[in-house]
Amino acid sequence: MARLNPFTPLLLEENRFLLLNQQKLPHTIEWIPISNARQAGNAIREMNVRGAPLIAITAAYGLALEAKYSKISDPLLLIPHLENAAKILLETRPTAVNLSVAVSRMLKKARETVQQGKPLVSELWEEALRIHEEDRQACLHIGRLGAGILPSGAVLTHCNTGALATGGEGTAYAVIKEGYRQGKISRVYVCESRPYLQGARLTAFELQQDQIPFTLITDSMAGHFFFQRKIATVVVGADRIASNGDVVNKIGTYGLAVLAKEHRIPFYVAASTSTLDENFDTGEKIPIEERSAREVTELLGISIAPEGTQAAHPAFDLTPSRLIQAIITETGVAAPPTPISLRNLR
Amino acid sequence: MARLNPFTPLLLEENRFLLLNQQKLPHTIEWIPISNARQAGNAIREMNVRGAPLIAITAAYGLALEAKYSKISDPLLLIPHLENAAKILLETRPTAVNLSVAVSRMLKKARETVQQGKPLVSELWEEALRIHEEDRQACLHIGRLGAGILPSGAVLTHCNTGALATGGEGTAYAVIKEGYRQGKISRVYVCESRPYLQGARLTAFELQQDQIPFTLITDSMAGHFFFQRKIATVVVGADRIASNGDVVNKIGTYGLAVLAKEHRIPFYVAASTSTLDENFDTGEKIPIEERSAREVTELLGISIAPEGTQAAHPAFDLTPSRLIQAIITETGVAAPPTPISLRNLR
Repeated sequence: MARLNPFTPLLLEENRFLLLNQQKLPHTIEWIPISNARQAGNAIREMNVRGAPLIAITAAYGLALEAKYSKISDPLLLIPHLENAAKILLETRPTAVNLSVAVSRMLKKARETVQQGKPLVSELWEEALRIHEEDRQACLHIGRLGAGILPSGAVLTHCNTGALATGGEGTAYAVIKEGYRQGKISRVYVCESRPYLQGARLTAFELQQDQIPFTLITDSMAGHFFFQRKIATVVVGADRIASNGDVVNKIGTYGLAVLAKEHRIPFYVAASTSTLDENFDTGEKIPIEERSAREVTELLGISIAPEGTQAAHPAFDLTPSRLIQAIITETGVAAPPTPISLRNLR
Repeated sequence: MARLNPFTPLLLEENRFLLLNQQKLPHTIEWIPISNARQAGNAIREMNVRGAPLIAITAAYGLALEAKYSKISDPLLLIPHLENAAKILLETRPTAVNLSVAVSRMLKKARETVQQGKPLVSELWEEALRIHEEDRQACLHIGRLGAGILPSGAVLTHCNTGALATGGEGTAYAVIKEGYRQGKISRVYVCESRPYLQGARLTAFELQQDQIPFTLITDSMAGHFFFQRKIATVVVGADRIASNGDVVNKIGTYGLAVLAKEHRIPFYVAASTSTLDENFDTGEKIPIEERSAREVTELLGISIAPEGTQAAHPAFDLTPSRLIQAIITETGVAAPPTPISLRNLR
C-alpha cells in the first residue's frame, strides 16, 4: 500500500496546488493540479476532494488563484469576476455550510482589499492560508476537547472525518486519534459508508497509516455490534449544524444515532464552529443534496442492480439535536446541544 | 435484461436438477446442474443458492439424488452413507433452521422406508417433492395472511425473500406481492443488503419482473426515509425464530427494527412454520454464521478497502421479539409473537 508521509490531501506549490484524488484511494495515489476556481469546482463536484472543511479550503485557494491568473487587471472589474467564480463554486455541493462560509469570507476580503487599495492577489492568498490554518488549529482543539469527554472502549464512526476531510487531523477522527493516544479508545468500528465507501476507502486508510486498530463493517452491521455491546460510543462529523443543534451529516448518520439512543450509548458530533449555521433555526430546511442514482446502482463502475432500476441517493441525512449527547467544537463542547449552548461557542 | 418466465430458481430434470446461480444475477443467467448431495452442499456453501427455505429444498433434492446414484445397493448400508452426506450439508450454513429441518426429515423418511422395505429412491424423491410443494403452499398462505394485516402505503424490505429464496412466491416478498395486487402497497423501498447485495441484485430483479414499483436504497439510507415518513411498514423474512419470537435474519434486520420502533411503524416478519425452532427459548444462543471478511473488503472481486484491512462479517443478526409487531406464517399470525401465540401456529 502506498504510504503518505506527511499525510495531507492538499499540497501547496508556487503557482497552484495539488489535490489528492480521493476517488482513487486507497489503491492509487493520484494528484490533481488546481490553478483556478473552475478546476477547484470540478474537483469538488466530482468528489475528487470531499469533506466539509476541506472543500471549503479548496474553494478558498481556488478563488485566490482565480484572482492571480485572471487577465483582468482592473481590481474593480475583478470583483464581479470573482463573484461569478464564487457562484459556480457554491453550486457544486449544496449541503455543507463550510463551503459558503469560506467563499463569502474570500469575497468580503476581496472587496475590502480593493476598497483599501491593497494588493488583491497576495491578500487573497493570505486569507486562504488563514482559513486553512484556522481549520488546522480547530482540528487540534476538537481532538483534545473531544478526547476529554469520551468514555473508554470501542468507538464507532461513519464516513471520513480525518486529514482527508479537513485542513488538519480531522474532526471526529481527531477525537478518535487523540482518544487512542490517551489510551481511552481500544478499537474503531468503521462503517463502510455506502454508496461512496468513504469509510472503507478513506477512514480505513487513515487508521492504517496511524496504526490504530479497527474493524471495517458494512453499514448494515452497526446494529448487530451495538446489540453485542461492542461499542461504547459513536463519534461522527457534520456538514451543517442548525442553531438548535440539529445535524446534517453523511447519509446513515441518523440511523446510527437512533441505534445509539436505543442502546443508551452517547452519540457525539465533532465539527468546527464554521459548520454552525445560524441561518437555520432547525435542520429541517437544510438542503439535502440528491446525487445521481447511478452512484447507488453502480459500484466502482460496475452495475450491481438490474438495468432500469430506480434508486434514491440522498447524500446526507438529518439527525435531530435530541439524539446528540454533545457537539464538540474547537471553542468548547455544547452538551447537550441547545440554541444557548451552541451560541456560547461562537 | 434476461427474463425468466415462469420465474423459478430450481428446475427439476429427470436425473438431476438445475439451480439458478444467484451469484451471477441480475446480469447473467447461469444454471448449475446438481446430481448429488456434495454438489448441493457446494452450491449452498458458495451461496449460488440462498434463502432459508430454498437451501432446505436444495438439500432435500440433493439427498434424494444421493440415494439414487449411490453405488451402495444394500439399503441398510445406504442409511449411514446418507447420514454422512447429511452431515456435510448441515455444515454448509449454520444459521437457517429450515436446512436442518429438511435434512432430518429426509433421514427419518429414509430410515422408515428401509424398515418398511419400501423402495428408498422413489420414496425419498417423493419426500423432497413434498417438502418443496409444502413450501410453495406455505408461501401462498403467508402472502394472503400477511396482505390482510398490512397497513396501506410504501413498504420497506431487506435482503431477498421471494421466489429466489423459497419454493414458491416467497415469504415477506409474497406478502408484498399480494399487498400490491390488492392495491395496498404503493411502492417498495429495497435495502441493497450489503455485503451480498441480495436486495440490489435479487429483490430488485424480482420486483422488476413482477412490475411492482420500487426504489433501491443503500442500507445506510433507511433511517432517512423513515424520518421523511415515506415508509408505512417493514416486512422481512427470517432464518430462524426462537420459541419466544426472537428472530434471526439477514444482517441489517435488527437496525431496521429499531428504526421502525423509533418511528412507531409496524415491523413484520414473514416465514413458514418450518423456520420456528423450539430448541431455542430465546434467540441469543442461535448460531450466527461468521463468513469471510473478504466478502466485505471485496465487492464483485474488486478490493474496496486498503490491503490488510480487518473486517467483520456476521451474516445474520438477532431481532428481539419485543420489536416485532407480528410473525406471519402459513398457519396464522402471531401478533404479538409470544411463546403461546407461536405455539398455537404449529
